[in-house]
Amino acid sequence: MSTLSVFLDVPLAQKMEGLLLKAFKQDDSPNKIFLAYKVCMNSEGQPWAAPVVHKARLQIAQDPSLNYEYVPVKGMKAFIQACLELLFGRHSRVIMENRVGGIHTVGDSGAFQLGAQFLKTWRQDSQIVYIISSQREQHGLIFQDLGFTVYEHCFWNSKEMCMDPDMFLNVVKQAPHGCVFVIGNMGNCKLTQCQWEKLMAAMKKKQIFPFFDIPSQGLFTGDVEEDTRFLQYFVSGGLEFFCSQSLSKNFGIYDEGVGLLVVVALNNQLLLCVLSQLVKLALALWLNPPTCGARIITSILCNSALQEAWKQSLKEIVEDIMLIKEKVKEKLRLLGTPGCWDHITNQSGTHCYLGLSLPQVEYMVKKKHIYIPKNSRINFTCINACNIDYITESINEAILFTKDSELSSEGK
Amino acid sequence: MSTLSVFLDVPLAQKMEGLLLKAFKQDDSPNKIFLAYKVCMNSEGQPWAAPVVHKARLQIAQDPSLNYEYVPVKGMKAFIQACLELLFGRHSRVIMENRVGGIHTVGDSGAFQLGAQFLKTWRQDSQIVYIISSQREQHGLIFQDLGFTVYEHCFWNSKEMCMDPDMFLNVVKQAPHGCVFVIGNMGNCKLTQCQWEKLMAAMKKKQIFPFFDIPSQGLFTGDVEEDTRFLQYFVSGGLEFFCSQSLSKNFGIYDEGVGLLVVVALNNQLLLCVLSQLVKLALALWLNPPTCGARIITSILCNSALQEAWKQSLKEIVEDIMLIKEKVKEKLRLLGTPGCWDHITNQSGTHCYLGLSLPQVEYMVKKKHIYIPKNSRINFTCINACNIDYITESINEAILFTKDSELSSEGK
Repeated sequence: MSTLSVFLDVPLAQKMEGLLLKAFKQDDSPNKIFLAYKVCMNSEGQPWAAPVVHKARLQIAQDPSLNYEYVPVKGMKAFIQACLELLFGRHSRVIMENRVGGIHTVGDSGAFQLGAQFLKTWRQDSQIVYIISSQREQHGLIFQDLGFTVYEHCFWNSKEMCMDPDMFLNVVKQAPHGCVFVIGNMGNCKLTQCQWEKLMAAMKKKQIFPFFDIPSQGLFTGDVEEDTRFLQYFVSGGLEFFCSQSLSKNFGIYDEGVGLLVVVALNNQLLLCVLSQLVKLALALWLNPPTCGARIITSILCNSALQEAWKQSLKEIVEDIMLIKEKVKEKLRLLGTPGCWDHITNQSGTHCYLGLSLPQVEYMVKKKHIYIPKNSRINFTCINACNIDYITESINEAILFTKDSELSSEGK
Repeated sequence: MSTLSVFLDVPLAQKMEGLLLKAFKQDDSPNKIFLAYKVCMNSEGQPWAAPVVHKARLQIAQDPSLNYEYVPVKGMKAFIQACLELLFGRHSRVIMENRVGGIHTVGDSGAFQLGAQFLKTWRQDSQIVYIISSQREQHGLIFQDLGFTVYEHCFWNSKEMCMDPDMFLNVVKQAPHGCVFVIGNMGNCKLTQCQWEKLMAAMKKKQIFPFFDIPSQGLFTGDVEEDTRFLQYFVSGGLEFFCSQSLSKNFGIYDEGVGLLVVVALNNQLLLCVLSQLVKLALALWLNPPTCGARIITSILCNSALQEAWKQSLKEIVEDIMLIKEKVKEKLRLLGTPGCWDHITNQSGTHCYLGLSLPQVEYMVKKKHIYIPKNSRINFTCINACNIDYITESINEAILFTKDSELSSEGK
């Protein structure tokens, strides 16, 4: 009897690593450079890690008093407490009022998977999600797979070369009642007091549910408090929200995938109900979250000397990032590259818009083997002393080339 | 303006920790004992850990050459290879033929969540799952939440006091075409060659899909190869299957929740299709599996001295378990407890049927504060020098009490 496979109808799934990375890997050019890694790189082109992590890891391995029994489904209490205090500040009102809580989540997707499953069940009348285009592939697909309708948007004003609060306000204005808004770091989108008030009023009126994405607190301005200050507007505006707080990038333990799904509710009673439902979902997803990364983070955050050392290392890496941006700008100035490049240094964080047009991006990729996303948002920590000259000269070439072709097409 | 919460309709979810543990925690008796923990305990009543884990953990923490960058979605290659060789044997045909693979999964639920999601999509014509009653709460709910119909069954023959292969065969006979069978360790269910052949023929004919649960390879007989030998029947019988391979309990790193979803297909091409779909699902579930536990396990399995030490520690703990069972039997003999207690030592593993009736279990729980599941399947490693006398005396009392009440009701 010949046997038929039960898997006969299962097709090969497309690799999801992104077309850009795939093209980069297939490129044989010795000059090829990839400027879209998620990871923060150090000046040697290696993934950055907070030096204090090594010390914490060793202390944990040498501690005979630790036991390695199952931890609660929602995670270790001390870990959750430390992370919430990091996010909102130790003496924040929302912590005092006992209306913020968290669930330990796994990997870069865990918090979004858990939160989306919750919203799927408990917000059945409004299964619409707004998400920033660059987050579409990573988080948008999670919502889409669960049956949400996902709309993309973008706040980058390519004419003014800045993040544009009005573009954000317009999307909110047009969004339907009760939809979910995935919101990344808002630091580069500078709202005036009046714009904040408008935003809060519009979101509250429409019962828009914010789902924040804090992938690397501290790696934006170098100051952990400053990086999440914008959350206070939402807290004091009386909004309820979820927040995916990742702690892998800002400690440099990318392989531990440590995170939290943070819940802010109007009062403690509501919070407990939401957390209890999330625990139920986490039970089915993984049951017990791996604790190694959580132990490292807790031991750093709960020891003031280690915490200070960690914060100092964040300051240093952010200064390095700013230095790279300054150098890129200076090199472009020396090359006489047309245009004003202040937008490079006006943006904070590892990932910023370079401000190239689509033909310029294509020139960089196809002619210079420098791999840049279509929206030209690159990871500046991928630029270092070894490749900065080639990169800036290529940017210059791309600008001049497209200027020339514009002129020649205008002349036709 | 008073604000309404978006969480207004969210009720408090029931705690899922199990009614038995809840009742135990609420019991104020100083004599209370819980005999249903999942964890393997050492003779001091502490969670067992393989001593070699400490060494591996320290080595990893001291290794300056390690980087902590993101690992692939499916997990570290060396880890998966080492785990598959542990499960099937290094020179097994299925590995040689390149038709077995695995995905690193998270926590005790991860492999079942991932596998169930796959089966939900790719076996749409048969969404029925058979599961052993004692696994209902842990794994059955995962299938149920995804829309599967879940049937419970049990192979414990309480008359013969043994696991009964005929009961298994009967359930298979009655099961519908194409259903999924979650199968735990079959070591205590001793099939004859003829019964194996019948089982394979019935499963193949009906295209029944086995989903094995290997929660603690090596903690059953003390011999890792012996513990999973039954898988060979399914491999050589030409069946395709999934297997949830957990590596937390047999290394004693319960808090790391390390596992694998193992896939056996008829050929490499089919395997690659299935793995590609699983990677897509894992991307949305957690994206990157935490690696600390996987590193510990890989460094032990890939170093023959450490591997030997680990295997030796498994042998020792299993000898301890057998010793406890012998002692329980001997104590019951000395107490003159009615009945033959050979079934205690005839079963291997940490969790075995004590063979009490429902009224006897109720007597143990209510009168003696010894918490035992209704089916009387207990964790023998929870019995130690401190509590063995109280436990065996209580068993004796429970037997005599119910014998008396049987007699008195017969006399009526």
